[in-house]
Amino acid sequence: MQSVHIASAYDEELKFLSKRIAAMGGHAERMVEQAVAALVNADPGLAQKVIQDDLVLDEGQREIDDKAIIIIARRQPMATDLREIVGAIRISADIERVGDLGKNVAKRVASVDGRQPNSLFRGLEALANLALTQLKEVLDVYASRSVERIGFVRDRDDQIDAMYTSLFRELLTYMMEDPRNITPCTHLLFCAKNIERIGDHATNIAETIYYIVTGDQMPADRPKGDKTDQVVLPGTVPAK
Amino acid sequence: MQSVHIASAYDEELKFLSKRIAAMGGHAERMVEQAVAALVNADPGLAQKVIQDDLVLDEGQREIDDKAIIIIARRQPMATDLREIVGAIRISADIERVGDLGKNVAKRVASVDGRQPNSLFRGLEALANLALTQLKEVLDVYASRSVERIGFVRDRDDQIDAMYTSLFRELLTYMMEDPRNITPCTHLLFCAKNIERIGDHATNIAETIYYIVTGDQMPADRPKGDKTDQVVLPGTVPAK
Repeated sequence: MQSVHIASAYDEELKFLSKRIAAMGGHAERMVEQAVAALVNADPGLAQKVIQDDLVLDEGQREIDDKAIIIIARRQPMATDLREIVGAIRISADIERVGDLGKNVAKRVASVDGRQPNSLFRGLEALANLALTQLKEVLDVYASRSVERIGFVRDRDDQIDAMYTSLFRELLTYMMEDPRNITPCTHLLFCAKNIERIGDHATNIAETIYYIVTGDQMPADRPKGDKTDQVVLPGTVPAK
Repeated sequence: MQSVHIASAYDEELKFLSKRIAAMGGHAERMVEQAVAALVNADPGLAQKVIQDDLVLDEGQREIDDKAIIIIARRQPMATDLREIVGAIRISADIERVGDLGKNVAKRVASVDGRQPNSLFRGLEALANLALTQLKEVLDVYASRSVERIGFVRDRDDQIDAMYTSLFRELLTYMMEDPRNITPCTHLLFCAKNIERIGDHATNIAETIYYIVTGDQMPADRPKGDKTDQVVLPGTVPAK
């Protein structure tokens, strides 16, 4: 009986990590949603709330790290369980970083006054929706460990990158049209970049889940879709 | 004798992780140095080299992760050693990310033609030197585990942030003066942000070293110095 009791307490410890990560994931999603809403509606109060909410994720990551170390030390887990635990450490770091990115969007709300063209805000919302869908579905895959469903991740990551590139060009165009757009559009450029990075973290999480379940690394070197480093917009470059 | 033999093999395994991290760190430093040199000298060949060099760090991180898991599973290490191993996983992730940031700078070389004002490139070089000094010294602290020397990290991080903020303002000013500066200066803005982030990763590594040596987390919530999210430059914002 003793060993059953111990095994079940151990299972509970592993489940605790998964549950805590699910809660952190939900929290990060809400932060990003609210950060984008604060930006679109020029709502500094909501932005402030998002900034404060980030503490919860810092704490969550720390708790998972501490707990994971204790479980490893106490249970001396073998292969699969060890991957679960190390995977939890990695995933919570990615989620914490998603929260940072949401916070960074929120911190820019005060520097963007909401008077920029509506299409920019619609574009940012669309980008955020896509990135959040990616994050949600990856966290669903984590909850169910249904790694065979993971194929959607790369296709959607490509969509996110394409949408980001188009937004990047649009922002440069507005900056060119009127120098008074330069400050707000620069901040929107960084907001767009932050949101695009959320997609990258979702991809990281997918790779970690793959590793947890299979013990293998997903093949590396997926071609990075963000091509904005090569965007050169006519009229916004020196004459030859 | 057998146990001495085993212990010494175990020590070798732990030393392997430290050595591999030192090598990864040196590689990341060189990548960043060369990326900035490629940018300043408009040298696309050197930029291409940096982009290819990033593979080495991806591989290094993967190797450390695999090795760490094997050591934990085989040796079932206790507290201090476990922190060493988990710390190695974290630090190699930070170094790999520094490499990504260097690569991102290199990828922008083709979109910046080197005809921007000299002061901008001097500013970027100075920022990179500061961030690289921070990274080097933090890696020295890791090599010697001399955690009592870690106090320099926050002061220098503040300097990095101040320098980044001033560069950010300067870049916006150039964009305002002439729309043909907008594309290159936007890319330089992202380069500056990437370099500033290297400082943040150095700080993360410092925090991990503190944790390895003491078993405690460094106090959280260090005030984030990057204040560019609040930069609003007159003439580059809509009239009230």
